[in-house]
Parts: sequence; C-alpha cells; structure tokens
Amino acid sequence: MSLTATTATTITADSEAFLRDFRSLSVIGETPGHGVDRQAATAADAQARTWFTSLAAQYGFRTETDQVGNVFALIEWTPGAPYVLVGSHLDSQPTAGKYDGAYGVAAALHAGRRLASTNREEAPKYNLAIVDWFNEEGCRFAPSMMGSSVYTGKLPAFQALAVQDKQGITVAEALDEIGHLGTGTGPEAAAYAEIHIEQGRSLEDSGTTIGLVHSCWAAAKYTATVHGEQAHTGSTVIADRKDALLGASMVVVLLREIADSFPDAVLHTSVGQLDVYPNSPVVVPSKVELVMDLRSADEEVLAAATAMLHQGISRVERQANVSIDVQQSHAWGVLPYQPAGVELARACAEKLQLSSAPVFTLAGHDSINMKDIVPTVMLFVPSADGISHNEREYTNDADACAGVDLLTEVVARLCRGELDGAE
Amino acid sequence: MSLTATTATTITADSEAFLRDFRSLSVIGETPGHGVDRQAATAADAQARTWFTSLAAQYGFRTETDQVGNVFALIEWTPGAPYVLVGSHLDSQPTAGKYDGAYGVAAALHAGRRLASTNREEAPKYNLAIVDWFNEEGCRFAPSMMGSSVYTGKLPAFQALAVQDKQGITVAEALDEIGHLGTGTGPEAAAYAEIHIEQGRSLEDSGTTIGLVHSCWAAAKYTATVHGEQAHTGSTVIADRKDALLGASMVVVLLREIADSFPDAVLHTSVGQLDVYPNSPVVVPSKVELVMDLRSADEEVLAAATAMLHQGISRVERQANVSIDVQQSHAWGVLPYQPAGVELARACAEKLQLSSAPVFTLAGHDSINMKDIVPTVMLFVPSADGISHNEREYTNDADACAGVDLLTEVVARLCRGELDGAE
Repeated sequence: MSLTATTATTITADSEAFLRDFRSLSVIGETPGHGVDRQAATAADAQARTWFTSLAAQYGFRTETDQVGNVFALIEWTPGAPYVLVGSHLDSQPTAGKYDGAYGVAAALHAGRRLASTNREEAPKYNLAIVDWFNEEGCRFAPSMMGSSVYTGKLPAFQALAVQDKQGITVAEALDEIGHLGTGTGPEAAAYAEIHIEQGRSLEDSGTTIGLVHSCWAAAKYTATVHGEQAHTGSTVIADRKDALLGASMVVVLLREIADSFPDAVLHTSVGQLDVYPNSPVVVPSKVELVMDLRSADEEVLAAATAMLHQGISRVERQANVSIDVQQSHAWGVLPYQPAGVELARACAEKLQLSSAPVFTLAGHDSINMKDIVPTVMLFVPSADGISHNEREYTNDADACAGVDLLTEVVARLCRGELDGAE
Repeated sequence: MSLTATTATTITADSEAFLRDFRSLSVIGETPGHGVDRQAATAADAQARTWFTSLAAQYGFRTETDQVGNVFALIEWTPGAPYVLVGSHLDSQPTAGKYDGAYGVAAALHAGRRLASTNREEAPKYNLAIVDWFNEEGCRFAPSMMGSSVYTGKLPAFQALAVQDKQGITVAEALDEIGHLGTGTGPEAAAYAEIHIEQGRSLEDSGTTIGLVHSCWAAAKYTATVHGEQAHTGSTVIADRKDALLGASMVVVLLREIADSFPDAVLHTSVGQLDVYPNSPVVVPSKVELVMDLRSADEEVLAAATAMLHQGISRVERQANVSIDVQQSHAWGVLPYQPAGVELARACAEKLQLSSAPVFTLAGHDSINMKDIVPTVMLFVPSADGISHNEREYTNDADACAGVDLLTEVVARLCRGELDGAE
C-alpha cells in the first residue's frame, strides 16, 4: 500500500469536500455487498447522473446532455474556445465496486470545482467540461465505451441508439425513459484527462501513489456461437449428440490453456459471458453464445494466441461434433498515449511530491478513444490487491485525495494549452 | 422404419378421427420450426388443456382438475369402483416436438372414446380416467414429473405449489393465472397405462412397431454451484483469478469424459442447464449454477461414474481455483415395470398382429411414478432417427395409429381387472 506516501499530508478542506461528495455518490445503487449496481440507463444510473448535474450546478457549471446520453458540465471562461474535457463514467457492472468510473467523475468534478474558483479572474486558453461518458461498461448494452466512441466518431450515433439489451429495449428507449436522451454532439475538445483506480497491483506492489499510463495492452475480442442440435439428455446416445454446451465448455478451457502456454503472465484470456439455449435440465443444448477476450502488452503474443485460438476451435468442432462461428467484435494493438502527456503528468506529480511510475492499462477506458482525437492524460491511483469489477474494490482516502490534487494540477495545465500539438 | 409393418392396414374411421384430433393439438403453441412451445401453465399449455377438456366432454367424459393441475377426464361405469388411468402430458420443452407427451394424451383420449362406446352396455370392473399430468417436463418448474409425483404421494402438494420459475412466479400462481388450480387429489387408481414415442432408435433400427417397456435406466441427477470471485477480465492476472465459468466448463468436459471412458455407450451424461453470474463480457464470473445428469441401464456403471464425478470435481476445484457445491437433486436405480404388464401388452400386440419387443426407457415418464402404486403398462411407438426434445421429432401416422389401437386393447383389459395383483 502507498499509504505511507500520503498519510503525513493534512486532509485539506478541498479533500474533505471531495470525500463527502464521493460518499454520497457511493450509496447510489448500493448493493447488499457494499458495492454498487448502476448499469447504463437504469434508475440507479439516472440517480447518479442527477448527483452529478446537481453538484455541477452548485459548483457553477452549466450542464448539457448529448445525443447518446453523455453528460457535460461546462464552464466557459473564453467565449468560443474549445474545451478541456475531464471525466470518466458513472455506470457500473451489475455487482461492481464503488470506485470504477465513479472515482474519476467525482475527481474530475472536484478538480473543476477548484479550477472554477481559481480561474475566475484570469481566462485560460481553453474552457473546461467535466464529462460523465454514457455506458462505459457495456454490460447492459454492447459495446463498452459507447458514449466516448460516438463522441470521437468511431461509432455512428444511430447505431449506438439502436443497440438492444436482453429485454429488447434500445439505448434510445432506455435513455428516453430516464430523461437523458439529449441532442447535439457535446462541446469541442482541445484535450482530455481521466483518472481511474489501477485495477491491477503494480502501484500497490511498488508503493507508488500515481500511475502515469503510457499505453494500453493490445486486445482481441470475439463473439462465438456454438451450434449443436437439441436432443433428449436421457435417451439420446452420446455418439448421436451435437452438444453445443460441450463445445462451448471446451472453448472456455482452451482459452485458459492458451494463456497458460505463455510464460510470465504476458497473456490474459477470459470468457465472461455465456448463454445456453434452450437451457433446460433434460435437453442437450442446441446453441451457446459466448464472448472471448484476449489481451497482451505484446502484439506478437496476441497474434500467436489468436492463431492458437482458431486452430483450437477447429479441433473443438471435430471433438464435440458442433460448428462454431467466430466473429471479431473488437480489436486494438498496443495503444500509446501521447508521451508529452505522460511527461506533463510526471512533472505535476513531482511538483506535488507524489511518487509516480509509468504503467500500462490492461482495461479499456474512455481515454483510449479520446487520445485518438486530442492530447490525453490518463492517471491511476492504487487499488487494494488489484481487485476490480468486484464489490470489494477499494482505494484508500489518502490515495484518492492525492489523485484529485494531481488531476487538478494536470487539468490546469491542459487549460493553459501546455499539451497543444502533442502527438 | 417400421412403415412396412402397418402401411398394409386400411386407415379406419377411428384412426382418421385420432389423426384429425392430433393435428388440431399439434398447432397449439406451434413454433416457427414446426415444433411446439407449451411450457407448463403457460397460455399455450392452457390452450392444450382446453383442447383436452372440450374433446373429452364431446366424447362423453366429465372432467376435473386436482390440487396441482392434473386434469382427469372420467367415465364411471361402475359406481364407486376405482379407475384405470391412462394418459401422459401436454406440456413441452421450450422448442419441442409435437409428439412428446401430446401423442400419449391424444392416444389415451381416443382409446377412451372407443371404449366409452364399446362398454356402454356392459360395466367393466373399473372405471376409466384419461389424464393430462401437470408439468412432466420440469423446464419451467423443477422437478419434472411434478403432477404424477404429487398424485403418487412422492411430493407434497404444498411443496410443488410453492416452486418458483425464474421470474419468481409460483406453480400455484401460474396455475391460478390460467384457471387450472383445482382441488382434491383426483380419482383413485386401479391401474395405469401410457404410450409414448420411444425417443431412441431401437424400434426403428429393428423394424419393430411396439416397444414393451420393461424397465427404466437408473439415473443420478445433481445440481452444482461453482463459486469463484468476480474480477476484471482485462486487468486481473491469471494467477489471481477464481473463474467460476472455467471451473464449470471443466465439469461439463469431465462429464463427457466419464461417459466416453465406458465402452458400448452404457452411460449417458449431460449438462443441459448452466447459468453464469454476473454474465458480463468484461467480468470474470463469480458463480455458475449447472445441472448434471448421469444415466445407465447398469447400476454398477452409474455408481462407478458417480465416484469418478466426485473425484473429478475435487480435481477441478484445485485446477480452476474455485469451490464447487454438489447436491443430489434426484436419483433412482434401474426401475422395472411389473412383468405381468409387459406380458399383457405383448399378448395384445400379438392379437393385433403388431410386431413388438421388450425395451428400456432411458427417459423418465409419469408411468415411472405410477408403477409404484398400481400395475402399470408402458408402451412405445418408434420415433424417426430417435430424435427427441427437438422440433424435428417425428412418428409416422401408421405407427401412431397402431399405438392407439394397441393402447385401446390394453386399457380394455386393464378395465376388466386383468392386471389385478401384478407385482
């Protein structure tokens, strides 16, 4: 833990204000296990959005919602100038922790609050917008990072709005239902900053307070449909079976075997979602749909793993007497952030006497979309035991407050145009 | 196919009447794939029940519904005497064929129709009741064979009525909703007969029209809950993961390996139902629930397989870093029907010049419950390619009509008391 790095600091009034607001956010959609359930465009998400807009108004920001439910809290110091965007997301996985996304929005809101007072006399080059990106998690509506994908022009708005959840409700209907289907495309961006818990152990293990995210692991995501044939589980002889669940299970095991075949944990693989049809105790499943996820910091490892996956799936098709359709749903190489942004964040940490280290992000973040259109800074604070997407997710108050301090300094410099032209 | 055994027969008016009524039943709850979806106590099941009660009334029967939704169509020739029950079930799997259960109820109705006219002058020893057992399939509400289990005293009615489907609707609520929550415990039984498609290939492969069911395979059914730990699929290192879906998938593969380890297909194993939590693309699953089914004609094989399963599950727990709770949900040994009933059915087939052979049933049927309280005859007709629990399930008209002829003869003899005292 990096506790020793920051516990000496007196908790300031700014930090106390941050912690108070963050606590009031943490109880929205709270689960019995002390996590949160705020899936995109649900009632709990709507309540979190109201938390955001009402506090933003209190802190002097005007709020607007764009065509896909991204919420922006704006302050215009220099009429007509573009905006430094800073934020994260308030939506969560079904049984999530309190920090993922929410910490970043709360931190951004408080960085904005401090700068709104600081900058009142002197107009910086850029204006400031705090953002809550719609549906970063992608659990209710796929794909993930939906709001920032539309904002950055990677996903057409009409396509995002037509995505259905498992009940057949579209994004447009769900946003309209909670009163968050806005219009327009949001403010023009000049730069972007985001802070997040690490969701890994490297900062904690090295006793470092701030992670300076330099790149994102490469990833390849696939959906697979295993086609078998429905039959009676009791009476159908094994040789006649085309058991889609057997085939799917062999794919799940295969993916782990591929990860284990590389040394030094350089590859992460998983199947998080798997649906069986018709899913009855006495029926051999006719169809299984599953989602596969492969990630590595090394693009060659990922390419080798992908080749092993395709070969392995052909073998599973023969062994389980099924056919498997595989579709790539998402893929990216190792994605670097602008080195000038990493250096700017390092300099800010140094100024604030916070320990820092360059780190990879293994998970996706909205900043991955944003860095493709503007200079972007991505920051991490430690998360205890690297626990993530879990109700036990935890970052201590000292680290959380240090992150807000650093983000405030970073955003101040972005507003002054210090990353202009960074590539 | 046993087509040659019966195509020479002229289709009688009785057969034509049967085929007409069976066709009118087959379109209730019809699926786009030409099967049916009539899960227990749904609107489609209710419509099938109305088909049954309205035709039964037309054919001279009085109908009543018992406390768990079993429907009886009664004719009382000898006041106060017990009843020969003959029937099967109208409920189905979600995408089922037209024959499973439905053929047996339609055949029983037409056997009853013929006997109702035949016997009008001469009172047999026993009265006659055609029965549609509630929820034989067990897909919406577990366990299967619910109605006959309550009727035979194996399952308390209050316990059956409290079972909930996945939406939290109880059996009592669902039956009440469709107006089929009756009262009482139904008529007293003297004997039972049921006819069903084979759901296997032995009759078709040997060119035999009638299967004389002498025993049911032994079975052991388990529910398993795999406990892992929720984590981020991207960022959590493999060594830290407790992936419940990996563990569950290894169990599915293990079950097939156990089946394959026995020669001559003496063991059937399957997992038909598997539910993943939280089932999100980017979350390592924390919990998976699955249903395991092992069946064999040889109780020693089943015992050996069960031991292998428990050993294998301990190995999976270690390999996947999960814990697995296994609960036995249902188990039975090889279950013989009364030999005198098999002989009575054989003699009836011989009289009607229908080829017959003793067969096992691998699937469960309501007759398995009934044989424990009264002398019981279980008959099969061929099913094409042994296809079952599948929309392509098929029995040709000649075989279907031969089955009704035979059932009529069997039930006539049961009503005369010819199986009295069979053990």
